Amino acid sequence: MRRSVSIRPTSTDRLEALTDGTFAIVITLLVLEIHRPEAEPGDLGAELARAWPSYLAYAVAFVYVGVIWLNHHYVFSEVAYTDRTLHWINLGIIGTAALIPFPTGVVADAFATSNTDDQRSAVLLYALIAFLMSAAWVPLFVYLGRNPWMLDERLPPRRFAIEIVRPAAGAASYVLAAVLGWFVAPAIAVLLFVLVVAYYAVTSAGMAAAGRRRHLPAPTSAAEPQG
Amino acid sequence: MRRSVSIRPTSTDRLEALTDGTFAIVITLLVLEIHRPEAEPGDLGAELARAWPSYLAYAVAFVYVGVIWLNHHYVFSEVAYTDRTLHWINLGIIGTAALIPFPTGVVADAFATSNTDDQRSAVLLYALIAFLMSAAWVPLFVYLGRNPWMLDERLPPRRFAIEIVRPAAGAASYVLAAVLGWFVAPAIAVLLFVLVVAYYAVTSAGMAAAGRRRHLPAPTSAAEPQG
Amino acid sequence: MRRSVSIRPTSTDRLEALTDGTFAIVITLLVLEIHRPEAEPGDLGAELARAWPSYLAYAVAFVYVGVIWLNHHYVFSEVAYTDRTLHWINLGIIGTAALIPFPTGVVADAFATSNTDDQRSAVLLYALIAFLMSAAWVPLFVYLGRNPWMLDERLPPRRFAIEIVRPAAGAASYVLAAVLGWFVAPAIAVLLFVLVVAYYAVTSAGMAAAGRRRHLPAPTSAAEPQG
Amino acid sequence: MRRSVSIRPTSTDRLEALTDGTFAIVITLLVLEIHRPEAEPGDLGAELARAWPSYLAYAVAFVYVGVIWLNHHYVFSEVAYTDRTLHWINLGIIGTAALIPFPTGVVADAFATSNTDDQRSAVLLYALIAFLMSAAWVPLFVYLGRNPWMLDERLPPRRFAIEIVRPAAGAASYVLAAVLGWFVAPAIAVLLFVLVVAYYAVTSAGMAAAGRRRHLPAPTSAAEPQG
Repeated sequence: MRRSVSIRPTSTDRLEALTDGTFAIVITLLVLEIHRPEAEPGDLGAELARAWPSYLAYAVAFVYVGVIWLNHHYVFSEVAYTDRTLHWINLGIIGTAALIPFPTGVVADAFATSNTDDQRSAVLLYALIAFLMSAAWVPLFVYLGRNPWMLDERLPPRRFAIEIVRPAAGAASYVLAAVLGWFVAPAIAVLLFVLVVAYYAVTSAGMAAAGRRRHLPAPTSAAEPQG
Repeated sequence: MRRSVSIRPTSTDRLEALTDGTFAIVITLLVLEIHRPEAEPGDLGAELARAWPSYLAYAVAFVYVGVIWLNHHYVFSEVAYTDRTLHWINLGIIGTAALIPFPTGVVADAFATSNTDDQRSAVLLYALIAFLMSAAWVPLFVYLGRNPWMLDERLPPRRFAIEIVRPAAGAASYVLAAVLGWFVAPAIAVLLFVLVVAYYAVTSAGMAAAGRRRHLPAPTSAAEPQG
Repeated sequence: MRRSVSIRPTSTDRLEALTDGTFAIVITLLVLEIHRPEAEPGDLGAELARAWPSYLAYAVAFVYVGVIWLNHHYVFSEVAYTDRTLHWINLGIIGTAALIPFPTGVVADAFATSNTDDQRSAVLLYALIAFLMSAAWVPLFVYLGRNPWMLDERLPPRRFAIEIVRPAAGAASYVLAAVLGWFVAPAIAVLLFVLVVAYYAVTSAGMAAAGRRRHLPAPTSAAEPQG
Repeated sequence: MRRSVSIRPTSTDRLEALTDGTFAIVITLLVLEIHRPEAEPGDLGAELARAWPSYLAYAVAFVYVGVIWLNHHYVFSEVAYTDRTLHWINLGIIGTAALIPFPTGVVADAFATSNTDDQRSAVLLYALIAFLMSAAWVPLFVYLGRNPWMLDERLPPRRFAIEIVRPAAGAASYVLAAVLGWFVAPAIAVLLFVLVVAYYAVTSAGMAAAGRRRHLPAPTSAAEPQG
């Protein structure tokens, strides 16, 4: 394969800085979705208690953002060089992840008001955006699989090929959630939303376990003389 | 002790970048809690003066965020490697710290309106979230105590074991503040909130003093020939 | 040419950190322009669908910010030292880019309400600010062209002279868009706005292609033994 | 002088990261002060034109933040180590600088409504906060003057002693602005506010000129063979 002349690789430092900055802000903006209640005097406690879906939504969305950041961190800890294409792929990941607070808030609102039509619309919006968020990771693994020279220290060229499974499974789950949430019951979709976050969190461990133990002096030998 | 296969340590650069970004935003969002007053013409001065609890809340919350960041900085200046578990512990610290502006604003509002029921609810909310913020530091010290290989330059394995005292004392104080604020008087809880911030600020010095003077050329010998 | 005594060059690390932070926030603030709809019960789906110009504006503005960041990244990957003048030029680039969410939202609103006078005002505002954004890049390339000692590894002194073409063409296009949008039809201006973003995105490849392949071990030779 | 046991110096990397993050957000939040106008159909152009004080306030405040960041950058490019005291001094600088958008917006509003009482209150608020912002730099230079071991590469111990003049002059100007703005005319105070920003911008050059040309290969010799 002849390499395109447009490739001009650089280190990933600023790509990671931009990404870290974006995730830090998304994490903090999630809190802004928890509005300070405008309560009548003496009614503040009840208003605060009534806002529990906001708190739950914050917790789930926060875990989601955390998982995505963690995945990004582990993938790019094995990427040594980046080019323009990888930058655009990464911008796709950032740009869809930055949307999270919006559909999260819409779903939380819709389930607070308990109108089924609104709940169906809300879960459809969430499923659509979350689908884009998952799908945005597929080109990353495809591209890294085709450009092994970008990876750190001559990893096996197919290192990331297997990882396509995870975002593809996530994207498929969001399609399923949209269908079930629209035609059967919105609550099923919400359950699936939480399950996908859990799936990503758990398989993040799997991915890490599959990764090679490099970069570091063997931890066990350093720890054992002290333990 | 056999080390789990899921450990795949990396350097702490991006963990620190994400944390610094989050704290920078929290610091700046605190200012957004100070609303520009909607005053009648000629009434701006009085409205600005009436908002003094916002200014006080900003100052206290700012010092709190500063202390937490400072603690984070000193702990992680001694941590060389991180794994998935430490990332999750750190996300817990970030995720609870990012909540600060919310209960701070609720407490400031409640004491501006002087309804005792609302004040009790507000200090209960603050105590609950601040309890989580303090409790989030306990697993950090437990985990570092059990994984001395993560620390810089073979520090004594029990280096951070003693540090559990501080967040545990903080968490206990918030339980006490919730009880006294709810059953006795909300103002007592606010006093305790300020005292815990002061406690963390002062013992931060203690922790630093206990730390070993490493990383650097001995400062005194470098300074004396010039002084 | 005698060099002014005020030059005191430093590395570009913090210039890049400030820039990355600003772009990360601008990206995230674009999402805040997508307001959660205040729909009547049962009307959420229709309200969400009606907000499509916000989604489109988000997508275009996001690509714009992405292109600008990418250009910044590539230019400064070849700049080794910075002085006070270059800092001010960079602040001009940051300060105009940070304005993007404002005119983008104004244009999206104006085309949602379909009043032609408002649309003309909105595209004029956008054209004016986008003109400043493009024009802010001209002094960068002029200054780097005159100070080749700032560039990495003795690049040809005229390395960036040719790059003045791009922001100059962009700025001229915004003048044209303002004239056509005001006197002919606002929609033409919007079309030009999108075309300029596309132009920047495509010629970003051209600039990268013209850049010398340095900084790195030759990627082809590293990849071929594995491919 | 015996050095306190509480000093435990570290590098300034994270101090700079926190500061850069905060300034990036302050720069971006200044834009949020420019509200998208809620105009009647056909009235958008007039509303946008009427908001010119917001644009001016953005420009001035942006230059102010830029100057402060630039000063911070140059001072800390000569600081090699930091301890707990320097961290607190830096937090004071950050915490007061983060307040800028608040009084800037209040002054812009007050001069849009043209009530003299409100204008006096607004300039008093601005003068007070700007006084704190300037005063926050005095302890920095005092402390660095007393701790030359913190500086890079054995600079002359009194390197930063002279720099106390600038924040002290700024702080004094804000006291003067408060007095003249309150007792004579608010517009005089606004004029002084702009002059202080200009003074800081211009003397920033002076400070840089006084700095030693270190850190770098001599720029002239690198440039001349090419020029």
